[in-house]
Amino acid sequence: MMRADYGDDSPIAAFATTPGSSALTLIRCSGKGSPDLVSSVFKSGKNGAPLLKETPGNTVIHGWITAADEKIDEVLISVFKSPKSYTGEDSLDICCHGGVCAGKAVMNVLKTAGFRDALPGEFTFRAFMNGKIDLTRSESVMELVCAKTETGRRHAVSRLSGSLEKEINEIKTSLVQVLAGAEIFLDYSEDEISADAEEAAGKLPNKGIALDVLNRLKKLSDSWRLERIYQEGITVVIAGPVNAGKSSLFNSLLKEDRSIVTEVPGTTRDWIEAFVSIEGIPVRLIDTAGLRDADDSVEKIGVERSRKLLQEADIVLFLFDGEAGHDNKPPDISASCLYIWNKCDISPLPQPFPLEGIVPISVSAKTGEGIADLYNAISSVIHEQAGSQLNNETDCAALGTARQKKLTDAAYRALEEALALTERDEPLDLIAPLLREAVNSLGEITGEVSTADILEEMFSRFCVGK
Amino acid sequence: MMRADYGDDSPIAAFATTPGSSALTLIRCSGKGSPDLVSSVFKSGKNGAPLLKETPGNTVIHGWITAADEKIDEVLISVFKSPKSYTGEDSLDICCHGGVCAGKAVMNVLKTAGFRDALPGEFTFRAFMNGKIDLTRSESVMELVCAKTETGRRHAVSRLSGSLEKEINEIKTSLVQVLAGAEIFLDYSEDEISADAEEAAGKLPNKGIALDVLNRLKKLSDSWRLERIYQEGITVVIAGPVNAGKSSLFNSLLKEDRSIVTEVPGTTRDWIEAFVSIEGIPVRLIDTAGLRDADDSVEKIGVERSRKLLQEADIVLFLFDGEAGHDNKPPDISASCLYIWNKCDISPLPQPFPLEGIVPISVSAKTGEGIADLYNAISSVIHEQAGSQLNNETDCAALGTARQKKLTDAAYRALEEALALTERDEPLDLIAPLLREAVNSLGEITGEVSTADILEEMFSRFCVGK
Repeated sequence: MMRADYGDDSPIAAFATTPGSSALTLIRCSGKGSPDLVSSVFKSGKNGAPLLKETPGNTVIHGWITAADEKIDEVLISVFKSPKSYTGEDSLDICCHGGVCAGKAVMNVLKTAGFRDALPGEFTFRAFMNGKIDLTRSESVMELVCAKTETGRRHAVSRLSGSLEKEINEIKTSLVQVLAGAEIFLDYSEDEISADAEEAAGKLPNKGIALDVLNRLKKLSDSWRLERIYQEGITVVIAGPVNAGKSSLFNSLLKEDRSIVTEVPGTTRDWIEAFVSIEGIPVRLIDTAGLRDADDSVEKIGVERSRKLLQEADIVLFLFDGEAGHDNKPPDISASCLYIWNKCDISPLPQPFPLEGIVPISVSAKTGEGIADLYNAISSVIHEQAGSQLNNETDCAALGTARQKKLTDAAYRALEEALALTERDEPLDLIAPLLREAVNSLGEITGEVSTADILEEMFSRFCVGK
Repeated sequence: MMRADYGDDSPIAAFATTPGSSALTLIRCSGKGSPDLVSSVFKSGKNGAPLLKETPGNTVIHGWITAADEKIDEVLISVFKSPKSYTGEDSLDICCHGGVCAGKAVMNVLKTAGFRDALPGEFTFRAFMNGKIDLTRSESVMELVCAKTETGRRHAVSRLSGSLEKEINEIKTSLVQVLAGAEIFLDYSEDEISADAEEAAGKLPNKGIALDVLNRLKKLSDSWRLERIYQEGITVVIAGPVNAGKSSLFNSLLKEDRSIVTEVPGTTRDWIEAFVSIEGIPVRLIDTAGLRDADDSVEKIGVERSRKLLQEADIVLFLFDGEAGHDNKPPDISASCLYIWNKCDISPLPQPFPLEGIVPISVSAKTGEGIADLYNAISSVIHEQAGSQLNNETDCAALGTARQKKLTDAAYRALEEALALTERDEPLDLIAPLLREAVNSLGEITGEVSTADILEEMFSRFCVGK
């Protein structure tokens, strides 16, 4: 394993919190000589207090960051000593005052003292390089920071606490056992007991274990479909004729949901969107109402944008105007479409519904009737799209990144092929390399096997200060 | 002194950093039983690690915030023991992961455990109530967080490190000396030695000290004029005819300035503004160019808005279009106005300038010629408006809030009246109460004398988490 270009052990510093009009700002420092460098710009709060240089690890000291005897900011510094730190190096967390100026001033002093700006993900990169955490846990740190819903957070925390690492390592141990069983014959195949290898063709020892591993890899691989939805979310677009009650339904869905993540502030856009959480899935809910409520010249643009939004949608909620009836034929939509009969408080859903193949959900956005049913229907479609039961348990291992998915699939394919060769009674010296390939892919997931390219690509997507 | 309504010693918690997609989020906890409450939702990272409850002050421990055995987030907790903490109470800083979900989840666990949301400024309020810092330093914490320029930060840090507290206490000590001198006669004035008091009429002992105090109070009071400008900044509006080069000048001033604080992102506004720092003063620079570059119907609105902006301005930069000449007569402007002859690279400033009483500054926004002169001119106007030399020294005591200014003026007026009575040989029993009033006002500045109303009003303007 080699270091990626982007890391050495030189002293680095970065803001670990978002600058703003908050009470405090946290600056992280790590790397060779960090305690001495910070010490050179620090004055302890009280005479007789221990010197920063002599402060043991896991200790907080109070004092001032200074520059040429000028007090820059009053701070608390948490001192960490290698290897007991996030990065595994000597590290310091400097807690300065909030606002735009204090942190900036302290950062300038640190840079003059010899720190350089940390690159994105460099702290976590060092933590990995120093054996503090494997790659799955490194990646989960970013998943956690980016989590959009409570379920997303729980899944990321599960990986952070090692659930995926454990699963991968267990699978790998089993696979190494299978590989070892095959290699017993290969070790001597060229000379004395090559006859044995011939004899053993197709007779992969521990084939039962191999089949179990294949099964577990399949389950892991499948988990990504849902995990990705948890991370990226889905887009639900509300469409339908003018006055069908699109905006009312939009607001009604927002009200039903108790865990609105964010509402997009009023912009110049002509549609409205908000993020809601449906069974832990971040749902971008779009109301296209504004798209048609305009004069003729704008109408054209509106229709075009509406079409574009419908193309991007994972689920379309198409409204019939209960009052006006079902004259409006719904457009051809490629996404999953839920048909909704609105204003059921005024005009009940006709039974049977005259449009063939369409069974609308009866709701009244005004009274709230049927909104819970609609929620369940949306949730069912998400289930279908995810191809599995929604999973709220945190202990079940699941993949957290596309990188992990790619490597899991590579391991699966190699093992699948190895088993196919076994079925066809092919010799073990064709099978063993495939098993080794699968083991390697699993090693890449946790980072036991890795290259500079992979690491750099991975960590550079992190935010600065991580 | 009594407690303001809003503080007791119950356990409180608040975000101390701005939630966002940062690496970390800091949650502050303080109050009675805090270590036990956090301990009830915390699992140490390693077996055999010290229990949170038994952890000594100024120590950082690593572990997980948990809820019913579910891991919620991996955290670092800094433990502080009374009285060695910011608030003076037992306190804990919980450093959790960044993003919108992790901190929120930890906060929910803390609230279930028994913490309540901290009110704005409640941590600093407690610090004050527990004698950790006086009111001038309490207020400086918010000044520091809100500082817009490096100079603003330095002045706030000066007060945070006690410069104003020291000055007020020195002045008060002197004034108490004067008061004591007067009261020697009053203690017995009603009985035995009332004759002495009569005799001492107008003969205030230590009059020299009183005059010196008056002087120092005047200096302090005057300091607010400039300090307020450092905090609130000034508005500079660029006005002039179409094509005079307003936008070019705007950009040119932005470029000259090396410490742009923020640029207001493109909004629906029809003027552009940016914040620059001129000699440490936060300057809101407004380009009115967009206001007139529109068709007729909009023109009217533009002119009206332009007038409104000019009314709000502290300084107006009025541009002559060097190419078109000086036909355009500048409007009547109430603010300080600097006249600028633009495009001097094409057309030199006519000497003498034909418009009476106007001496424009010759610049070329295009080539940058004269921009430095313009900067100096703006700076001079600021000097004038502040009524004093711009002060970049941090050791000179200056007032930081309108509250302090009000009390300083009250002390000044009382002392001034006391001295006037002395001049008129009035008896000391009329003079002493005025001296006592002045001493009290000074005591209110540092908080030695305070009321619940004053404290609540003051701290409620703080941000949450402070």
